[in-house]
Parts: sequence; structure tokens; C-alpha cells
Amino acid sequence: MDSNAPPCIILNAPQLAHNIGAVARVMANFGLADLRLVNPRDGWPQERAWASASGAEWPLNAARVYESVTEAIADLHLVYATTARPRELQLPVIGPRQAAADLAAEVAQGRAAGLLFGGERAGLETADIALCQAVVTLPIDPRFRSLNLAQAVAINAYEWRMTVESGAPANFREGPPPADAAALQGLYDHFERELDEAGFFHPPEKKPSMVQNLRSALGRARFSDQEVRTFRGVVTALSRGRGRALEKLARRKAEGDA
Amino acid sequence: MDSNAPPCIILNAPQLAHNIGAVARVMANFGLADLRLVNPRDGWPQERAWASASGAEWPLNAARVYESVTEAIADLHLVYATTARPRELQLPVIGPRQAAADLAAEVAQGRAAGLLFGGERAGLETADIALCQAVVTLPIDPRFRSLNLAQAVAINAYEWRMTVESGAPANFREGPPPADAAALQGLYDHFERELDEAGFFHPPEKKPSMVQNLRSALGRARFSDQEVRTFRGVVTALSRGRGRALEKLARRKAEGDA
Repeated sequence: MDSNAPPCIILNAPQLAHNIGAVARVMANFGLADLRLVNPRDGWPQERAWASASGAEWPLNAARVYESVTEAIADLHLVYATTARPRELQLPVIGPRQAAADLAAEVAQGRAAGLLFGGERAGLETADIALCQAVVTLPIDPRFRSLNLAQAVAINAYEWRMTVESGAPANFREGPPPADAAALQGLYDHFERELDEAGFFHPPEKKPSMVQNLRSALGRARFSDQEVRTFRGVVTALSRGRGRALEKLARRKAEGDA
Repeated sequence: MDSNAPPCIILNAPQLAHNIGAVARVMANFGLADLRLVNPRDGWPQERAWASASGAEWPLNAARVYESVTEAIADLHLVYATTARPRELQLPVIGPRQAAADLAAEVAQGRAAGLLFGGERAGLETADIALCQAVVTLPIDPRFRSLNLAQAVAINAYEWRMTVESGAPANFREGPPPADAAALQGLYDHFERELDEAGFFHPPEKKPSMVQNLRSALGRARFSDQEVRTFRGVVTALSRGRGRALEKLARRKAEGDA
């Protein structure tokens, strides 16, 4: 992938090969090429996808398949989740136009970016949205929300192309670039492991939503690589401090008992 | 139809019922309801349309069928033709965003407006585009122009809704409102009949393109009803004048011969 490649399209658990082909077609219409599939329901490749792409075969030929959203976005520095449903996460909710401007600014700085879409029925899980930096919502009429997957991709891809054709993107960020999703995931794993050991996730059945809220809150900050390292150092330091405090407590207790 | 109804969608010679259903679905997604079909290839109604609308049945149930674009747009005061191909007509070429702003301004003034789309294969004939006030072109990648019909409707419908949601439309026009397409068609018919009698369309095989150029040139002016009447008066005066001049010439000739 060249360093200024357009955003990739990530389809999480797509059901119908026909829709995957229709997505490839609109990607080609608006100059996108990098298609990533997370657990396509009926496996991959599927002939029907090529049949419904009307000749837009290159996104399908080059499509990569992943077993989790985490893997699919590992090399991306900015990922937005496209979903019609309001969520409890504290993430910015923007429209496709703003999303396209943000993605264009990211790509213009040589960093890979992508748009994540859910499957036809289920949409996106909150856990996957929590890995993204914003939620992209289309201005759908509340009286009829059932938007076809390829249509959702089409409108975002159209806005991408409108932004690119209108010239230089805005929204440049000063300072060091944000880390990629793999680096963030490393931080999340470290952080949550230590919190788990510290008994933070209580009651246990609340852990998934607590994790999601933490991730989306940290994700909004868009840490640089240096900041990720710093934050992991903070987690380590706090954990060791907790360990030492526990040791001291145990020692005191032992001395008191003596 | 209430006086501020959203624009209608006119499909000229659509081929696949599946696509008509997909169009109804995106119309419902973005708050459009008035669907007009000109000569659907396989007749109407067609069960497959309902099957592919995912529950967006009301645009299909209320869809009206016409035998010509002229009839389908007769009550509209502003009609834009959506086509990817550049044409020889002297019409403004705009994007979906500008089109949505123009349509919103028209509708806000209580005048019916619409977007005309061609069939899946053939697109729009120049004669039909010549009945419209502008050409709407999507920013398609020239390397892959094959855009699905429902996707083209989706992007225009999305821009319509973005415009409506953003508040008051711009582009108000001072003075009396433009006439509807039926009034313009009456003018065109009158005008062209007189030109025909005057031997204007020469050579005869050039007549269709000459007619198209005249119509699109006049259409851009967006005559008011009063202006249509005035212009028809002009045509009549010129034709009768020519008749009187010929009579006079004949009379003189007769007198000379006497």
C-alpha cells in the first residue's frame, strides 16, 4: 500500500456476497480499493460477489480476510465506525462529510485510515465501535432506518471523493502523529490486565461495558507512539506501586501478628 | 401532494424491478416518497420491486406510471437530469450538492420539483435531458463509471436530506415563479410547429438536435407563466406577420401582373 492510499473499507461480519460485490462496485466508482473482510458469514472468496460487482474486480481480488476487527485495523491510525444507532460510548458523532475531511487529512499525512461497517442485520458491536475514534452517522429519516450496506458505503465513498476533488484537506494536527491501532491495542491489553488484577472490574458482569468506555475514552485522545509508551509506563508504575503497597501491608500485618 | 413536498424521483425506462425496489428503499431512507416511472421495461407493478424494498412500500404503492418524460414532469417547475455523461447541450452541469440546494429552494417556494434518472443501460436520451434545467453529475472515478441506479439516487437523496437538515435553503429567485413543464412544453410545441412551417429545420435530419438545442436554451431561462404567454404571442405574431407579408407580396405581385 502506498503511503497516501485512500481509506480502506472494513466490513465486519458481512452476510451476503451480493452486498460485498456491490460494495466493491461503489468503492471503484469513487476511487477506493482496499477492502477488508472480518469473518464473512459464508466464507471467502464467493463467486456471487464478483457477479454483482459489475466488473469492479480489483477490490475483491485484493480483499483480505481477518478474524477480528482488532486484526483488520491493526495498521490503521484513524478508524471511524459507521453506524446508524446512537451508542452509549463517549465518542464524537459526525456526518460523512466531516468523516471524509478527517480521513483525507489523515491520509494526506501518510497514515493509513479506514471506515468500519457492520453486517447487514447486526450492525456493529459496541466493543468494536470502542476501537474507533468517532462514530459516523448518516442523516437517515427516523421513520425508515433500514439502509442497505452498499448504500452506506456509497455515501461515505462519495463524500471521500468530493473532499479529495475539492483540494487540500483541512484539519491538520500539530505535533507527532497518532499511533496505529495495534499500538493502542497493546496499551489497552496491558491496561486492562493490570486493572483486572487490581480488582477494578467489579461487578464482573460489568467488565465488558467498562472496558468499552475506557477504550473509547482513551481512543479519542489519539495518543502518539511516545504517548502510548508513556502511558504504558504509567500503568506499569501504578501496578508496581500497588504491589509494593500490598507487600508493605502484608509486612505490617505480619509484624503486628508477631 | 402538499405544496412543499420533497422532490420526486423520475426513473426513465428502468429495466430491473429489483433496482426500482432499491430506489424506493433509499428514497424512504432520506425522506422522499414521490416515485414516477416512465415505461418500466417489464411493466408495472412488479412483485420483485416490493421484495427488494425491505419494507419501504409506500413509494412503490403510490408510484405513477407514464408513457413519456414529458408527461411525467408536466406538473414540475424544476427538473434536473442526473447523468454521468457530458452532453452537447448548453445546460449547467452541477453536482448533487448544488442540485439539492436548488431543489430545496424550489420546494420551499411551494413549487414541485424532481430529479430525472435514466435506465440502467441506456441512461438518458439527449431529447429528455433537453427538457431539464440542469445536468447533475456525480464525481465518479473515470476509471470505473458504472454506477448502480439506486446508488445514484441514494447520493442525491442523501444530499437532499443534508440540505434540508442544514436549515433554510439559499438561491431564492426574485420575481414571479417559473412556469411548470407542461406550460413550457406547450410553448416548445407551438414554437417548433411554426419553425417547421417556416422551413427552419433544414436539413430535416438535423431537426432533432436543433430542437434539443432550442429547448435547452429556452429552458435555462426558466420563463414565468406570463413570459410563456408573452413568448407564445411573439411566435404567433412572427408567424402571422410572415403570413401577412406573404399575402402582401402576393397581392403586390398580382397587382403588378394586372
